[in-house]
Amino acid sequence: MQRNRTRRLMLASAFCVLAVVSTLAQAADALASWTDGAAKARIVAFVKAVSEPGGKDFVAPPERVAVFDNDGTLWAEQPMYFQVIFIMDRIKALAPKHPEWKTQQPYASLLKGDMTAVMAGGEKALLQLVMTTHAGMSTDEFRQIVSDWITTARHPRTGRLYTEMVYQPMLELLDYLRANGFKTYIVSGGGVEFMRPWAERVYGIPPEQVIGSSIKTKFEVRNGQPVLVRLPEVNFIDDKAGKPVGIHQHIGRRPIAAFGNSDGDFQMLEWVTSASGARLGLIVRHDDAEREFAYDRKSHVGKLDRALDEAGPRGWTVLSIKQDWKQVFPIR
Amino acid sequence: MQRNRTRRLMLASAFCVLAVVSTLAQAADALASWTDGAAKARIVAFVKAVSEPGGKDFVAPPERVAVFDNDGTLWAEQPMYFQVIFIMDRIKALAPKHPEWKTQQPYASLLKGDMTAVMAGGEKALLQLVMTTHAGMSTDEFRQIVSDWITTARHPRTGRLYTEMVYQPMLELLDYLRANGFKTYIVSGGGVEFMRPWAERVYGIPPEQVIGSSIKTKFEVRNGQPVLVRLPEVNFIDDKAGKPVGIHQHIGRRPIAAFGNSDGDFQMLEWVTSASGARLGLIVRHDDAEREFAYDRKSHVGKLDRALDEAGPRGWTVLSIKQDWKQVFPIR
Repeated sequence: MQRNRTRRLMLASAFCVLAVVSTLAQAADALASWTDGAAKARIVAFVKAVSEPGGKDFVAPPERVAVFDNDGTLWAEQPMYFQVIFIMDRIKALAPKHPEWKTQQPYASLLKGDMTAVMAGGEKALLQLVMTTHAGMSTDEFRQIVSDWITTARHPRTGRLYTEMVYQPMLELLDYLRANGFKTYIVSGGGVEFMRPWAERVYGIPPEQVIGSSIKTKFEVRNGQPVLVRLPEVNFIDDKAGKPVGIHQHIGRRPIAAFGNSDGDFQMLEWVTSASGARLGLIVRHDDAEREFAYDRKSHVGKLDRALDEAGPRGWTVLSIKQDWKQVFPIR
Repeated sequence: MQRNRTRRLMLASAFCVLAVVSTLAQAADALASWTDGAAKARIVAFVKAVSEPGGKDFVAPPERVAVFDNDGTLWAEQPMYFQVIFIMDRIKALAPKHPEWKTQQPYASLLKGDMTAVMAGGEKALLQLVMTTHAGMSTDEFRQIVSDWITTARHPRTGRLYTEMVYQPMLELLDYLRANGFKTYIVSGGGVEFMRPWAERVYGIPPEQVIGSSIKTKFEVRNGQPVLVRLPEVNFIDDKAGKPVGIHQHIGRRPIAAFGNSDGDFQMLEWVTSASGARLGLIVRHDDAEREFAYDRKSHVGKLDRALDEAGPRGWTVLSIKQDWKQVFPIR
C-alpha cells in the first residue's frame, strides 16, 4: 500500500516536471505566426505584466479572463457569416420535404440563389430562415445537424472546411493566454449552439466558455425521456451592447482582455478596457485581400468604423493582418 | 538565464510534489462529517467508477460536471429563504427614504413585520418587493449591497452569519468532487447576483459556475464610464423545468451528478440521471429538527413530495441529515 502510494507520487511528480519543461519550451515560439511588430509586443508585455507575481499589474489567475469575438476575429466571415451559409445549406437540404417553398418567400428566392431578394425581405425574412433551420428540434438533434455540416461543408472560395478558415495566429494566442493562466471565452453574435459542437476541438474552448445569441428552449418529457426543445423565439442577442450583458450574465466578472474586429465589439471592448488595472483591447483589421479579405468601414459584414476611429484615444491596439501575421490560415 | 530557468523549474516541481502529497493525504478523510452509511458509500462508489481510467464507467474530466441546488442543499432555507430575509432587511433599510411606504402595500405590512399580510398579496406583491430591492442600481452597486449584508446579517434562530448556515458535509463533498476532477456548479432558483458575491469564498465555486434566476440588465455609459444597470424585469427563472434549461444555456453539456432537496429540483435530477452512463442523483432530506429543521411534503419552503415518491424507482439516493451527517454546520 505504502509502496504503491510512493510509486504514484513519483509518477505524478514526473508528469508535473514534464509539464513545466514543456511550458518553458513553448514560451519561446508561442506566437510563431506573428511578426515582431507592435501588436505582438503589446500582447506579450500585457501578459507578462499581469502574470508577474509581485508586479504592480499582477492579476490573480481566476481574474485572468479573456473574451474573443468569433466571426472575423477567430475565423473568417466573408463572403458572409458562415452561419448564414449554414442556413442556406439547411434550407436546400430541407426543401424536398417542403414543396410549398418553391413559391413562398423568402424560401423561393433563397432556393434560386437570389440572396439580394432574400435580403430585401429584411430582418423579418432572415429571422424566418433562422427559425426554420434552428428551431423545432431537440438540442441533441441540432448539435448533430451542426456537427454533420461543419465536418463536410466547404468555403466557396478556398474549398477549405470552415474550421480550416480559423486564424492560425489567433489559435496560438488562445494557447499562449491559457498557458499563462487565462480562461478564454468566445463572446459572439453568432448562435451559441452553432459554435459549441466544434469550439472545443478547434479552439480548445469548452462549451461552458462559449457565449452567443440564443433562442429559447423548453424542457419536455417525450416517451419517458427528457429533452430540451428549441423554440422559434429569440432568447438573447449577444451583439453590440448585448455583449457586456452576456459577459456579465455568464461569467459574472469583468474580463481583463478583449479581442474583436468590428463595431459589434465596441461595447465589449469599452466594458473590458475602461476598468482600472492593466487591460488589453485589440482589434483585428482585415486589410489583406491577397491572403484573406480586405474590408472595414463600408462592409455589410463585420463593419469596422467607429471602433477604428476611437481605437487610438481608447488605447486599443489595431492589428493589421497584412503586417502582423506571417501566416493567416493553418497549413493543411 | 539558464540557472534562473532551472531554479524556477525546481521550484515548480516542488510545488507539484506538495500538491500531490496533500491530495493523497486528504483522500482518507475527505468526507469526515459523513457517517459510513449508504449515502456516503453511494457517492464514493460513483466517484471511483467515473474516475478510474480504463474502467467501464470512466468519464473524461471535462465531462465530470456536478450541479448543486443551493437553498436547502448547500445552506439552510428555514424559516424562509435567506434571500427573502435579505429583501425584508433591505426594505427596512430603505424605508427612511420612502415615507410613502408607511401606507402603501406590500411595504406597510412588511415594515410592521406582518409577513402573512405580505404573502396575501401573492406573487405580485413578492415580485414588487424583489424589484424594489434588486433593480435600479448598477451590478457593481448591487454586489456591494449583497456583500455588506451577507457579512453582517444573522440568522434569527442560531445567531450565525448566513454563510455559517452552510452544511459542513456538503462543503466536504464539493471539495471531494473537485479533488477528483469534477467541476462544481450551483443551479439555484435564487438570484444569481445574490449568490455570486460570496459563493467563491464560501463554497469554492467561482461566479462563472453559478447559475440562478435573474433580472434583465442594460448597458449604459454614465459620465464616460460604462455600467450595467439592473432593470425591474424578469430575465430567467431557474426553478423546476427551468433548471435543465439554465444548465444547458450556461454549461452546454449534460452534468453527470445532481444534488437537490425539493420538488424544485425534480427536473434537474431527471435531466441529469436519465442519460446513459454512470449518473448520480441525490436528495438531501431534512429530518433533523434538533440539529437543523425537519420538513418535507407540507412545507411552504423546500417542499419535497413528488421527488421523494419517485426517488426509489429513479435510482436517486435520499440522504437523511439525521443518519448520514455527523455534523450539520461548520464548527465556529
